[in-house]
Amino acid sequence: MLELIDLSKKLSKEVYQETFPELEARLGACQRAALEAGVPVIVVFEGLDAAGKGSLINRMSQALDPRGFSVHPVSAPNEIERYYPWMWRFRSILPRDGHLAIFDRSWYGRVLVERIEEKISRRRWEEAYDDIQQFERQLTDAGRVIVKFWLHIDKKEQKKRFKKIGKVPALAWKVGKQEWLHHRRYDEWIEAAEEMLQRTSAAHAPWTVVEATDARFARVKVFETVIEAIQQELGRRASAPKVKPEPMPKPEVSPTREHTILDRLDSNLAMEREEYNTELEKLQKRIFRLEHEIYVARIPAVIVYEGWDAAGKGGNIKRLTRGLDPRGYEVVPIAAPTPLEKSHHYLWRFWSKLPKAGHITIYDRSWYGRVMVERVEGFCEEEEWRRAYREINEFEKQLSDFGTAIVKFWLHIDQEEQLRRFEARQQTPEKQWKITDEDWRNREKYEQYRICVVEMLQRTSTTYAPWTILEANCKLYARIKALRTVAKCLEEALEKA
Amino acid sequence: MLELIDLSKKLSKEVYQETFPELEARLGACQRAALEAGVPVIVVFEGLDAAGKGSLINRMSQALDPRGFSVHPVSAPNEIERYYPWMWRFRSILPRDGHLAIFDRSWYGRVLVERIEEKISRRRWEEAYDDIQQFERQLTDAGRVIVKFWLHIDKKEQKKRFKKIGKVPALAWKVGKQEWLHHRRYDEWIEAAEEMLQRTSAAHAPWTVVEATDARFARVKVFETVIEAIQQELGRRASAPKVKPEPMPKPEVSPTREHTILDRLDSNLAMEREEYNTELEKLQKRIFRLEHEIYVARIPAVIVYEGWDAAGKGGNIKRLTRGLDPRGYEVVPIAAPTPLEKSHHYLWRFWSKLPKAGHITIYDRSWYGRVMVERVEGFCEEEEWRRAYREINEFEKQLSDFGTAIVKFWLHIDQEEQLRRFEARQQTPEKQWKITDEDWRNREKYEQYRICVVEMLQRTSTTYAPWTILEANCKLYARIKALRTVAKCLEEALEKA
Repeated sequence: MLELIDLSKKLSKEVYQETFPELEARLGACQRAALEAGVPVIVVFEGLDAAGKGSLINRMSQALDPRGFSVHPVSAPNEIERYYPWMWRFRSILPRDGHLAIFDRSWYGRVLVERIEEKISRRRWEEAYDDIQQFERQLTDAGRVIVKFWLHIDKKEQKKRFKKIGKVPALAWKVGKQEWLHHRRYDEWIEAAEEMLQRTSAAHAPWTVVEATDARFARVKVFETVIEAIQQELGRRASAPKVKPEPMPKPEVSPTREHTILDRLDSNLAMEREEYNTELEKLQKRIFRLEHEIYVARIPAVIVYEGWDAAGKGGNIKRLTRGLDPRGYEVVPIAAPTPLEKSHHYLWRFWSKLPKAGHITIYDRSWYGRVMVERVEGFCEEEEWRRAYREINEFEKQLSDFGTAIVKFWLHIDQEEQLRRFEARQQTPEKQWKITDEDWRNREKYEQYRICVVEMLQRTSTTYAPWTILEANCKLYARIKALRTVAKCLEEALEKA
Repeated sequence: MLELIDLSKKLSKEVYQETFPELEARLGACQRAALEAGVPVIVVFEGLDAAGKGSLINRMSQALDPRGFSVHPVSAPNEIERYYPWMWRFRSILPRDGHLAIFDRSWYGRVLVERIEEKISRRRWEEAYDDIQQFERQLTDAGRVIVKFWLHIDKKEQKKRFKKIGKVPALAWKVGKQEWLHHRRYDEWIEAAEEMLQRTSAAHAPWTVVEATDARFARVKVFETVIEAIQQELGRRASAPKVKPEPMPKPEVSPTREHTILDRLDSNLAMEREEYNTELEKLQKRIFRLEHEIYVARIPAVIVYEGWDAAGKGGNIKRLTRGLDPRGYEVVPIAAPTPLEKSHHYLWRFWSKLPKAGHITIYDRSWYGRVMVERVEGFCEEEEWRRAYREINEFEKQLSDFGTAIVKFWLHIDQEEQLRRFEARQQTPEKQWKITDEDWRNREKYEQYRICVVEMLQRTSTTYAPWTILEANCKLYARIKALRTVAKCLEEALEKA
C-alpha cells in the first residue's frame, strides 16, 4: 500500500503562492465557525521521523485563533501516566466543544514506536487496536471531528534530512542513536504503519496519507483536508433536525415489567446489632490490610455506589472508609456536570477521576447517571443513553484490562421503607438538609426509574465488572454485605496479579 | 519551645465519648456553612513520622461532606513537578471557594524533610521561607482560612510506634530504612520544626502544636481548632460591610498626569519593509536556535504581551512564533476568567499555565488584567487591585528564582493611530470579526486606562522582570524590537544558567 504512494509529488512555488494565502484564511474562518458552532476537532499527525510534522503543525498554528486551539506533543508516558490505563493521558487532553486539538504523535504511538521498540508485548499492542477503535468511535458518535495524517517519506529522504539536521549545532541532539536505529528499521516502520492504516481507517475517522517529500505540497494537502472535514461536520449539523429530548413518560402498567430481578429480592434480610458490630470490626481490619496490599501490588480499585434515594449510600460508604488510610482512597461524589464538563464527552469527567494504580476511588453515584437520571429527566437524547450501555461496558473493560478491581453496588430499598426514611429525615432537625424537594419528585417517578434500573443492571453487568445488589431495608445487613463484597473482590484481584 | 509541650496530655474514654460525637456534628455543620458562604479552608497536617496524621485525617474526612473536601497526600515532587517552580504543585490543588482541602504534609516539606535529608541546599530552604510567607499571606488576604497543625510525640513514643507498625505484615513496609534514619535524627527534626514554627507563625495563619501521644486528645484538639477557625471567618464575613466595586470614573484633567513615560515615547520610530524582511529572517533563525538551546538547558521562558487594542499584539506574536518549533512553545490567550477560575485566587489560573522547564509560554494579555481592565471596569475591589502589584511582583520573583526568563511587552500606539486601525478593520470584511463594540467602549475610557498603564509600568518593572515598551505606530519596527528583546533575554538567561 505505502509503496504505491507517489513521493515525487510537488507543488511549484508559483502555484503555492497563489493558493496558500487563501487556504490559510479559509482554515482560520473554518475554525472560527467551528468555535461558534461548538464543534470539537481533533487533528492527529503521525509519520516517520523527520517527515516534517513540526513545521506543518507550526504553519497550521499560525492560521488558527489561539483562543480556540492547543498543540499536544506526545512522547513516552511519564511516571504518573504509567499509573493509569494507557489511554488515560489522551482522554484528559481532548478538546472541549468548539476547540481544536493538534496531536504531534498520539495514541497511535502504542502500535508504532512502542511496538517497534518492543516497549510492550505483542498482546498489548494487539489489544490497543480495539481500544483505539472504541475511543475514536465514541468521539465521532458524539459529534467530534477526527482528522488523521500519516506523513510519508522514503528511506533515502529520511537519511538526507537526518544528516542535514545533524549539521546544525542547536539541533544535532534531535537526531540521536534512537533516530538512526529507527532509520535502520525503516522497513519495520512501514510494516507497522501499513497495518495501522488498514486496521484503523474508518469512515468516521479516516487516515490521509500525505506525500511529504515536498513541504509545499504537504502543507496544501493537509490544510485542504482539515478544511473539508470541518465543513462536512458543520454542514451535517446545520441540516440535522433539532431533537429536543423529553422526560420519560410514566409507563403504562404491564405484566412484562413485573417479576424483575428487583421483585425477587428478599426484603426481609436483616442483621442484629451485635453480630453487626463483631463483623464490622473484623471486615474493617481485613479491608485496611487489603488497602495496603493492593497499594504495594499497584492494583487500582473502583467502587461504585448507586441506589435509591435514602437507601443508605452515605452511611455505607462511611463504614467502608472508617478503617482506611486516607492516603489510599478517595470518595468522589458525582453531581450534575459543570459547564466545562458538559462541553466534553460525558465520560470525560470520569476518566479524569480514576484511581492511580494502588489507590481506591469510591464513587457516590457515577457514570450510570447517563442511563438513569439523564434518561428519565430528558437531559440527553435517546440515542445518547442507548449508546451509553456499550460505552460504559467499553470503559469498564479498559479499566479491567489495566488490572483494576471493579465493584458496583445497587442499594435497594422498597418504596415503603423509602417513605419511612424520608419522613424521619424531615422530622430530625440535623438531618433536614439531607432531604430536598427533588427527592420527593424523584419518588414520584419511581416507575420510570424502575425500568431504567432493571435495564441498567442487565445490560452492564459483565464478567469483568458485575453488579452486586445490596438488600438495604436493613442498613446493617447492607453494610456488612458491601464490605464483604469489597474484601472478596480485592482478594481476587491480588490473586490474579 | 517544643520541649515545653506537655506530651502526657490525655483524654479519658468517658469524656471523649461525651464530647466527640457533638464535635463531629459541629464540624460537619461548620463545613456546610463554609460551603454555602463560599469560604475556602486549607488544613495542613505536619508532624513527626508516626505521629498519627493518617488516622486524624481519616476521622476528619468522616465528619465532612464529600462534596466539599479533598485530601492531598504530599510526598517528594515527581518528574513533572520538578519542571516547575517548587510551589507550583501546591498552587494547582488549592481549594476553590467553599471547599476544604486537607494536606497530609505540605509545602513545609521544603523546610523539614528536604532540609534534613539534604535534598536541597541551605540557600534553597532559607529562600523557601519567603515563598511560604508570601504564599500564605496572599491566600489569607483573599479570605482563605489556613489552619496548620504540628503533631508532636517524643522520641520514645516514636520508637514504640515504629516497632508496632513493623510487626503488622501488611504495614511493615511503611517503616523502612528512611523512617529509622529519621528517628535517629529526631533532634534535627525538632530543630527544624522549631525554626519553622517560629518563622511561619502569623496571626493570619497560625500553627497549632498538637500533643499527639493520646489519639483522643489530639482528635478533640484538632476538631476544636478547625471549627473555631472556620467560625471566625464566617463571623468576619457576616459582619463585613458589603463593598460593591465601581467602575473607575473619568479623571479630571491634571498637569500631574502629563509628561508620563508614555508621552516621552518617540511616535515616529519606523522601519522600511526591506530592512524589516532581512532583519526578521535573521532574528527568526536566531530565536529558533535559542528555542532549542533553552530546551536543552531546561530554562523556561515567559513572554507577556500587553498593549492598547489594535496595537498589533496578534501580528507581533505571529512573527515571533512563525519560526519556532511548536513542541517548544505555547500561546495562551487570556480572556475573562471562567466561573471555576473565579472561585480561586486570581493568580491561580496563571500558575496553572506556566511553561515547563525548557519551554516558552507567550501570553496574549496576562495577569496584568487585574490592575487594568478589572480596575477600570470595577470587576474587583480597590483593595484587591492595590494588593495585586505586590502579588504580581512576588509571583514573577518566584518564576525568576526558578531561572525563568521573563519578557514583558507594552505595545504602545497613539490615539490617532488606534482610530485609523479601528476604522480600517471595520471596512475590511475578513477583519471585521476583530473589532467589537467593546473595543469602542474601551477607547472611550482612554484616560482611565492611561493612568492604570503608567502605574502598572512603574510599579511592576523590576530588575528580574522589566517591562519593554514597544513603540508600535509602525508595526514593522515593533516586531523587530520585540524579537530582538526576546533573543537578548534568552541569551542572557543561557549565560546565567
